[in-house]
Amino acid sequence: VLTRRSVALIGLGNVGRSLLQVLRSQAPLVRERYGCEFRIVGAGDSGGAAVSQAGLDPAVALAAKARGASVASIAAGAFPGMSAVELVRRLPARTIVLESTPVDLRTGQPGLDVCREALGRELDVVLANKGPLALAYAELAALSDLGRAGAPALRFSACVGGALPTIHLGVRDLAGSRILRAEAVLNGTTQGILRMMEAGGSYAEALAEMQRRGLAETDPTLDVEGWDAANKVVILANAVLRQPTRLADVAVEGITRLTAEELRAATARGERVVLLCLAERAGDGYRLSVRPTALPLDHPLARMGGDEMGIVYYTDISGRLSMTTRETDPVPTAAAMLRDLIEIATS
Amino acid sequence: VLTRRSVALIGLGNVGRSLLQVLRSQAPLVRERYGCEFRIVGAGDSGGAAVSQAGLDPAVALAAKARGASVASIAAGAFPGMSAVELVRRLPARTIVLESTPVDLRTGQPGLDVCREALGRELDVVLANKGPLALAYAELAALSDLGRAGAPALRFSACVGGALPTIHLGVRDLAGSRILRAEAVLNGTTQGILRMMEAGGSYAEALAEMQRRGLAETDPTLDVEGWDAANKVVILANAVLRQPTRLADVAVEGITRLTAEELRAATARGERVVLLCLAERAGDGYRLSVRPTALPLDHPLARMGGDEMGIVYYTDISGRLSMTTRETDPVPTAAAMLRDLIEIATS
Repeated sequence: VLTRRSVALIGLGNVGRSLLQVLRSQAPLVRERYGCEFRIVGAGDSGGAAVSQAGLDPAVALAAKARGASVASIAAGAFPGMSAVELVRRLPARTIVLESTPVDLRTGQPGLDVCREALGRELDVVLANKGPLALAYAELAALSDLGRAGAPALRFSACVGGALPTIHLGVRDLAGSRILRAEAVLNGTTQGILRMMEAGGSYAEALAEMQRRGLAETDPTLDVEGWDAANKVVILANAVLRQPTRLADVAVEGITRLTAEELRAATARGERVVLLCLAERAGDGYRLSVRPTALPLDHPLARMGGDEMGIVYYTDISGRLSMTTRETDPVPTAAAMLRDLIEIATS
Repeated sequence: VLTRRSVALIGLGNVGRSLLQVLRSQAPLVRERYGCEFRIVGAGDSGGAAVSQAGLDPAVALAAKARGASVASIAAGAFPGMSAVELVRRLPARTIVLESTPVDLRTGQPGLDVCREALGRELDVVLANKGPLALAYAELAALSDLGRAGAPALRFSACVGGALPTIHLGVRDLAGSRILRAEAVLNGTTQGILRMMEAGGSYAEALAEMQRRGLAETDPTLDVEGWDAANKVVILANAVLRQPTRLADVAVEGITRLTAEELRAATARGERVVLLCLAERAGDGYRLSVRPTALPLDHPLARMGGDEMGIVYYTDISGRLSMTTRETDPVPTAAAMLRDLIEIATS
């Protein structure tokens, strides 16, 4: 029996385009192994939207993006200027919304309204955009199956470490265990910069090199000041540690004041500096922080290269579980959206 | 709403006794967080069985085991000499069977018949014993929800690496991805011996030290000849790689012929020898092996200490995912049985 589900892609930046690729490349596997077929009935970017009951061809959408055009330029059902929320309003019932618009830490928009509109319409949502969850976790949980059985699904395993299943490990694989402490390196840009500075070179040189490789944004503030990592801590604290948490609850310090000398001095001491996300028990809850931290070289997160992210859970009955991922492009983040999509479609 | 489920523990060796402890220590957490309450209505060991509709007290069962007595000696409903299969026949409907009898690689008994009897009676089963799956994966899958929707559940996340969620990572978190290669260190005894030999000392000395610490069996053959690891490869191949596999399909070589000199020579070359479980693509399937293998020091599995196990999945779209666990006693294996139990009770 084949399960046919309509999907809509909101946001066609690096992750959204990778998701188009992945939906295309994995279609035969997804059909054969999980009995699912996904039809793209809508796609939206900053230039507008395209809708098609018959299904948009991912190759055509990718070609439009490759020539710098909006998806609203592709023939069938093009709506230049249509907003993301408007697109969600027009989607057929039971469409699964795949959201990967850019992170906005002040307003969470347009992702937040996309989530509200979709969940309000009883549409399942898969998020790669951390903004809505970091700003409004409790509200979105209450609108979805996170808070209420039978409500539409909200999945976001791509939000905290790409393909690294930080959320699933904490929620599912540690079911029945208490988490005593969690440590993680969840920002690729700063990890790359720090490992580069260690090898020689200043912060500015390392940042420039990461930008040249497309691994750091032109405005790298969110990454290097620790806000991207802090967002992920907020989601992890809400979803895994079950502690209602907002961005203001996380103590945040970035890497911009670190010098190459400090990093090399750490190496000489047998340590390595990472931008550490930390949740440590304090009273009945967890104290949360993001800050540069020197780890002994035999620590699982000190062993990682510049293209790795990782997490360590210290537990009461499940020992110490460590997990790392090596990802060099946004495809694994799109793969995480696909796993959420398959889970929704098959459950 | 509280979900009340009856459970029965078959096998009260190290893992079974740890499970008694864990069911006791985590009961408040399990009630509060998952809304589940488990009542132990049966327990069996090599001396017989105890059954009680009202529920056996885990503390009483543990005390009996601590004084070297069979669980069949505890007051209420004691049946000295009752076999495991007979116990399963007497369990109330909807009891969840928690199986941790010793591994028998020739017959799979008594675990195999426990599984057949329980699944035949529509009872859900959680396994820590690898034998039944290694010998009869296809048969047990066909009797359970692995092969047929609506059939009783069969879960075994404790079988391949204790609390390390090797199976869940491969099946759930890599849904939609193709596994190109899997590498793992899944036998704690050999990992401990190899790391000890590296530090100096012969194979015999390292083995004796591991036995003294209770980390190697008196007869260590299954571990040091690679059969325990091969069992886990068989389960992983069937469950994660979807390749029908028997023990004879795995090329197996143990560690007994390695010398401390060879290990130190590897170190000098910048390598480290582990007993590697390997699945590599070959034609349409995977070629499977367990053998001592020198890995470069920056390999995730070369970074592990003597008390760690780990797995690395190389994938088409999810990058490279590595996971390691540090476990120093059987409690994490019992914790893995608890996570399976919670999953069954809450789904």
